[in-house]
Parts: sequence; structure tokens; C-alpha cells
Amino acid sequence: MGRKFKGMTKRSEDYPQWYQEVIKGAELAQHAPVKGCMVIRPYGYAIWENIQRQLDEMIKETGHENAYFPLFVPESFINKEKDHVEGFAPECAVVTHAGGHKLEENLYIRPTSETIIGDVYRGWIQSYRDLPLLINQWANVVRWEKRTRLFLRTSEFLWQEGHTAHETPEEAQEETLKMLEVYRSFAEDYLAMPVITGEKPAYDRFAGADHTYSIEGMMQDRKALQAGTSHNLGQNFAKAFEIKYLSREQKEEFAWTTSWGVSTRLIGGVIMTHGDDKGVVMPPKVAPLHVVIVPIARNDEDKAKVNEYLEPLVAKLKKMRYGELKLRVKVDNREALRPGPKFFEWERKGVPLRVEVGMRDVAAGNLVFARRDGGEKQTMSRDSFAENVLSLLDEIQQSIYDKALAFRKENTVELDDLNEFKAFFTPKNKKEPEIHGGFVLAHYAGCDETEKTLKELKVTVRCVPLGQDEEDGKCIVTGQPSRKKAIFSKAY
Amino acid sequence: MGRKFKGMTKRSEDYPQWYQEVIKGAELAQHAPVKGCMVIRPYGYAIWENIQRQLDEMIKETGHENAYFPLFVPESFINKEKDHVEGFAPECAVVTHAGGHKLEENLYIRPTSETIIGDVYRGWIQSYRDLPLLINQWANVVRWEKRTRLFLRTSEFLWQEGHTAHETPEEAQEETLKMLEVYRSFAEDYLAMPVITGEKPAYDRFAGADHTYSIEGMMQDRKALQAGTSHNLGQNFAKAFEIKYLSREQKEEFAWTTSWGVSTRLIGGVIMTHGDDKGVVMPPKVAPLHVVIVPIARNDEDKAKVNEYLEPLVAKLKKMRYGELKLRVKVDNREALRPGPKFFEWERKGVPLRVEVGMRDVAAGNLVFARRDGGEKQTMSRDSFAENVLSLLDEIQQSIYDKALAFRKENTVELDDLNEFKAFFTPKNKKEPEIHGGFVLAHYAGCDETEKTLKELKVTVRCVPLGQDEEDGKCIVTGQPSRKKAIFSKAY
Repeated sequence: MGRKFKGMTKRSEDYPQWYQEVIKGAELAQHAPVKGCMVIRPYGYAIWENIQRQLDEMIKETGHENAYFPLFVPESFINKEKDHVEGFAPECAVVTHAGGHKLEENLYIRPTSETIIGDVYRGWIQSYRDLPLLINQWANVVRWEKRTRLFLRTSEFLWQEGHTAHETPEEAQEETLKMLEVYRSFAEDYLAMPVITGEKPAYDRFAGADHTYSIEGMMQDRKALQAGTSHNLGQNFAKAFEIKYLSREQKEEFAWTTSWGVSTRLIGGVIMTHGDDKGVVMPPKVAPLHVVIVPIARNDEDKAKVNEYLEPLVAKLKKMRYGELKLRVKVDNREALRPGPKFFEWERKGVPLRVEVGMRDVAAGNLVFARRDGGEKQTMSRDSFAENVLSLLDEIQQSIYDKALAFRKENTVELDDLNEFKAFFTPKNKKEPEIHGGFVLAHYAGCDETEKTLKELKVTVRCVPLGQDEEDGKCIVTGQPSRKKAIFSKAY
Repeated sequence: MGRKFKGMTKRSEDYPQWYQEVIKGAELAQHAPVKGCMVIRPYGYAIWENIQRQLDEMIKETGHENAYFPLFVPESFINKEKDHVEGFAPECAVVTHAGGHKLEENLYIRPTSETIIGDVYRGWIQSYRDLPLLINQWANVVRWEKRTRLFLRTSEFLWQEGHTAHETPEEAQEETLKMLEVYRSFAEDYLAMPVITGEKPAYDRFAGADHTYSIEGMMQDRKALQAGTSHNLGQNFAKAFEIKYLSREQKEEFAWTTSWGVSTRLIGGVIMTHGDDKGVVMPPKVAPLHVVIVPIARNDEDKAKVNEYLEPLVAKLKKMRYGELKLRVKVDNREALRPGPKFFEWERKGVPLRVEVGMRDVAAGNLVFARRDGGEKQTMSRDSFAENVLSLLDEIQQSIYDKALAFRKENTVELDDLNEFKAFFTPKNKKEPEIHGGFVLAHYAGCDETEKTLKELKVTVRCVPLGQDEEDGKCIVTGQPSRKKAIFSKAY
């Protein structure tokens, strides 16, 4: 199971190739024998479990409950919302037969669940007293993809999708932005991935939404990754599915709905934000393992002594919690491998703290540890390590966030001139075809014409950042009057 | 959302009707707008989350890791294992089109994942050093059903499926029984559902297994519910998918594999084991809510006083853990409902402890509580309640288990005579067509002939219980020599 390993392609040489190799080297995932799908391997799935566990807590703390809705969406449901069907029907997987018979109506595998949930909500909502309805689901969804990349774009992926209904448009908008903020804080505080929050341009809205917001991170190839979205669906789905309620004024009204989701794509974001040429670098808050301990011993006698010395430390560490989750510690006692290959393996897997203990450490009551995020090996007493391990993890979490934020700042420019804009997104160096560009903050008026020019440059409007001061300006592409700036970037 | 409620059908009147009504009354689930599927509502899904969280811990403690494999299984994979295709292909849902095109090969929605996982394991396993491979997945599966019952039999359901590979048949058998024991202890210790562990008869094995074991509970209509299964797959799937390894003797061998699963069916088991004519009764260890507090006040002034009095109690309770999970407490301050309807609602939902607090209790420093499992209301000081809440929950957990076990014992007989056997399974009373019979422990020789006689009686062999002393006997149906007894029963 992946014990052999060759030198890895460098990020600067071939970033997409590096991405594939770090995923393989860390045993995170692989392409499935079914076209377009992935197998999430145990080490990769453990990251998803840690994401789920902690994000779920945040979703519940903001008043949402989990539920589960069917995998199948009748064709007629998808067809009810005009924009939705245009956006999603072409990429759906369709069940035509079941139980040995042709179905009377085709069933789509959910690409997202607004329609099936909308139909159920119609029955759940009668009066304003039933609102707000705040529900989330953890599920698999399917969107047929021609070109796939592990975690970033696969035909089946795992996600959570929140679906809420409200009395007023203001409440729906508040909910939309509240969940965007939950995503921002989760991405930054747990994944150590700095993100920009903003509104997507009209042409890039969710199919059926009035407004779509996203969090956008910068990967190390300076491309943007849309890492989560939150949609204000207005009354579009309420009208299509007759989600009506009797208002406080005893009038029948359509509800205002929202939806929002993040997916296993976040794992791709973690890999591309923090990984280096040695492998992935795990943010401690979602790391499958926090501490790996490699005993160093020349013979069985020494080994027994080292392991005996480690026992109280391991017992103490295993009782600790890092945040809400247990501290995850492993002693690597594999016989078949020497320490060197073990170090490389845990480096590839990005374990935040690697501890080595040999006979000299036993004699001195010490241990040696290395931080995955860099720096010299350090010696510390065994007891101090147990006392300091949580703050060491916090330091790593902060340090990789700071590094990623500094990287984004270095690679973000404000521009007013279209020629400079074009030059920014044109490779200067044939050797590094992938790594150029970054984020451009520039005025954007939202005209249709913009999209064409951008397409030629393979650039997209990522979002119009929230919280910016409005000012008079001219759209960098069309010269039309503009009041706000957008982030422009190449993207995944 | 289900605030109105009429008198419920009694279990003794119409058990299946009672089952539907308690599910509706407790807002656990409902039939989906897609035929055969269910919507698991928040209160029902919370039970599943508690099951997942705690069973997952037990699965990990026995050395397994979680992973995720694709929803889709190519048709050719299903066809590779002869028994498997016969058993599962007829009940599969089939994707024939995706991304707007007809697929070259049909994809089955996984009815279970032995085949797709077998294909992946072939790549993961090369040497005995890669064994045992111990993996579990939490997922949705689809088996097309004509007649469906919420939680018990739906076309889509949620489950976990363990898939392991081993060096020797002995290890595979040990794993099969180890996980059966995990299921037994989970069912009994968490769901308070007594179960019998045993081996299924040959005709009722999992399609492709050498041996299938199950846990069988007795529901209150005296029918059996198969609540979990564990399969020793021998080398059948290893041969079909070429899961080979180089042995310690440097020989190429096929691996020995197992699989095991429990599903959302467990929730049906909880409902039917513990529910009474007032609604469901939640085992505290998986209850969505442990304590519900209903303030009783005639006016806003009193209400403010009662809530102020409750604050420190609620704060204290919310910090506590019951087992590994947080203690779940709710203060029911809904304006639109009077205390009576609130009590009925929480009774229907089976909350273990219901607390009432009025002005008299505030003055005395007391509260009044009722246990959902019965008995008089009790008065206790507010502080003592906080100290005793965990042991009260433990008492309830134990008491409903004891009650269920006593019920099973009362309704289990040992028989030697076929006429008595037939009489036992024949309704004595036209008024209670559903509630008769129970478990019969009787000799069983495993002949094909047995199945026919049993079919006429609508009786099945549930399992041959593990751990029984062998003795000479005669099969109760065929009179053939037998060494072991089986449990016979009507079943879900």
C-alpha cells in the first residue's frame, strides 16, 4: 500500500503533476474504477471526518438541524425551475431502470437538492410559525464531469447542503450572509486557508439563485479556488414548489429560501494552500494525526526501553483534546521500515509534529521533535512536550495561515489599466506556464461584454468582495462606470 | 409541522398502523415524494447521528478506519460473482444515461459495495504485510423495494458497511464474529434492544457469503427483526476480483474477506422494541433529547421568574456529557402551546426525562420530573436533579432493556413437536391477527424441505444461536437428526 516512493515533482516544475503526486504520496485518494469518481482513502477520509465534525458543530450552533432527503429527484421536479433545469439537467446521471423494470418517470441522481427538498418543505410549512426552517444535510451528489481532478472536480462528491426558508427577504439575505461567514471562519480558523468573501457576478450565479456568494482562496499556483457558496434563492424555488405560508397578517405568501454548501473540494484547497515539495502539510485542526512518534533503536532491547519510556507520554497525549476532537497520536513501530523512510512518509502525509526518541533521549529524559511547517529539530524534555503540545499545534496552525495570507497579499495587485491587466495574466516564462498571475482587484461594472474578453484571457471574475467602500471608477475591461471592485483571477 | 395530534391507534389494535402513527407523531420520518424512499426528519436523523457517532467509535476501537468508495458499480463488476449477481441485480437501480449521453456500460447504484471495493482492494493488497485490511464506510445504498415501511424497508437507506481482507480463513472468521459481537453489544448497551446472535440458515445467507451471522431482536408484536449482519465471504470475492497477496512463504494466495453492516433499520428496531401507546420511548444513550423542561407560569412575570430559576440548572446540564456525547437539554418556552399539549408532544417523542417547574417549585427550590418509561411524577430539589440526572438516565436505559428482555423471555418457548409448533404460530384470536407467536427454540437440521413447511406458516429460521451446547435431537420440521437448535419466528 504505497510504501515505495520516488522523488516528487516540484510545484514550480509542474503544479498539476505535483498535485497528483502529493495526493498519491499521502494516500489521500485515487481515481475509482468508475469513470470520473474517486475513492477517498482512509487518511484522506479522516480529514473529511474532522471537517464534518467541526463544521457540523458550527452549523448547529447557528440553529440548524440535520436531516436526510432522497438521493433521487424525479425528472419533473428538476424541470420545475427554469434556470435550474438549464444549469443542472445536462450534467445529471439518470436512472431509467430499477427493480428489473423501466421506470415510468426517470430519476436524476441529485446534483443538489433544492427541488426535492422544496417539494417536502411545501408540506412542512403552513404558517409563519413554521419559519424559519433551518435544515442541513450531509450527502453525496453527482454532477457528470468530463475532466476530473481528485477532490476538485469529480462526478460524485461529498458535501453538506443547507436549505432554509424564511418569512422575509431580509431574513433570507441575513441567513445567506451568516452562512457565508461560517464558511469564512471555518476556512480560515480550521483549514488555515485565507479566503475572500464576495458576491459572484450574475453570469456565474447558482442556477435559480437571485444572489450567489462565495469564499475564494488563492492556491500556490496563484489560481483561485471557490471553496464554498451561499445562495439567496429569493422566491424562485418557493414559487416553483409552492412553498407558501400564512403570514402574521393572515395572508398567503411564498417563502424566501436559501441554500449553501461546501464539499470535499475543501480538501483540495488544503492540499494546494499548504503543501510543499515534500508533500502535504496538514492544518492541525483537521489533521488525521497530530503527533507521530518514531522510536530509534538498534536492537530489541533498546527498542523495549524506548517504548517503555514512551508509554506514559503516549497515554497522556491520548487523553488530551485538541479543540473539540481527541488528540491523535501514533507510535510508528513498523519493523520493516528504517527511521529515514518513516520520516519521509510522515512528511509526505503532513503530520504537524514528528517526534524521534532514541536511547540518548531516554537517558536524558528528552525527546527530539520537528515541526512539519519548517525550522530546525528541537530537543525538549518529555514532560515539557506533553505540556506544550497543544500550543505547538496552535503555533503551526497560525504559522501556516500567516504564510498563506502573506502569499496571497504578495500576489494580489490593484489595477486600472486593461493592458497591464492582460500582461499580468500572460505567462512571462515558457518554463513556468502554470505559475503566473494572481488576484487582480479592479473595477467591474458587470456588463456582458466583460465575460468575452475575460474568456480569451482564461480569467474569471471571482467575486465582488463584501465590505468594500464604494467609489466612482471605470470597469477595467469595458470602461463603463462602476462603483465596486471585483477580484479577477484564473481559477479551478 | 405536526403540531396537531389525534388519539393514536393502540399496539394491540393494529400494530402496523401504530408503527406508522408513532413515527408521524414523533416526527421521525415520512415517505418521500420519490417512490419507495424516505425523508428522515431532524428528530429521527438525530437518532441516526447518535448511533453513528458511538458505533463509529466502537468500529475504530477494533482497529478499523473509515474510507469512501463510489456510489456507482459498473454492471460488469456485479456480474463477476455468480451468487452476488443473482441476489442483487434484480433489485438494483440502474443509471443508463449521464451528462446527456447514453453510457457505454450501465452503472448500478450500489446495493452493497463488495464488488467495487473488491476491485479497489486488488490494487491495495500485494503482500501479507498489507493484511489485515480493515475498512468501514458510512454511505447510502439502494435496493429497489415494492412494499416499503419507514426505516424497515425502503429503496434507499443509510448504513455502514465494513469490508476487511485477511491472510487466513481463521482470521476472517474471527473478524466476522468480532463485529457481530460489536453489533450485539451496541444493540444491547446503546439501543437497550436485547438480541440473539447466531448463524443464518444456508438459504438465507448473503449472496456470495460462506457464512452469514445476524443479531435478531424481538419486536413487541413478537416478530423478529434482523438488526445487523456479519458475513464471512471466504475467498469468493477475492477470486472474483483477484484480491491476491504474496504470503509469508512467498506464495501467491487469495485473501479471505468479510463484510458487515447495520442500517437505519436500527431506528425501526428502537421504535418497535420500546414504543408504547403514547409514542416512542427513546433509549437515553441515543436519544436526540435527554431532558425537556416545561416552565409553568400564569403570566409574564411568573414566567420570567421561572426562567431565571432555571438558568443555572440549564447551564449546568448543558455542560455535562452523557457517555461520549453532550447531554441534550431543551427548555420548551413556546408561547402558542399550553403545558398539556407540550407534555403530550414530548411523550410522543419519547424524551427520557420531562421536567416541570412552576412558582411553587421556585419557592421551594424544587422541580418535578417524570420518567418516560413510567412511574409517578417525582419532586426533587433543583440541585439534586443536576447531580442525579446521569444516574436517572442510566436507570431508564437499564429499565427499558430489562423490560424488553423480560418480554422476549415471556414470548420464547422451546418445542419438540411440529403440531405444537404450528399451533404456536397460528392466531388464536381474530381480533389480534398480528400479535401472536414469538420465538421458538427448536432443533433444526437445515434440510431444504424445512423451508417449504415454514413458508406455509409464514415462519422463518432466524438463526442458529451461537454458544449453545450441541445435543442429539430431531429437526422439528423434518425429523432429521440434528445437533443444534434454531430460533424460528415470523419476521420483518
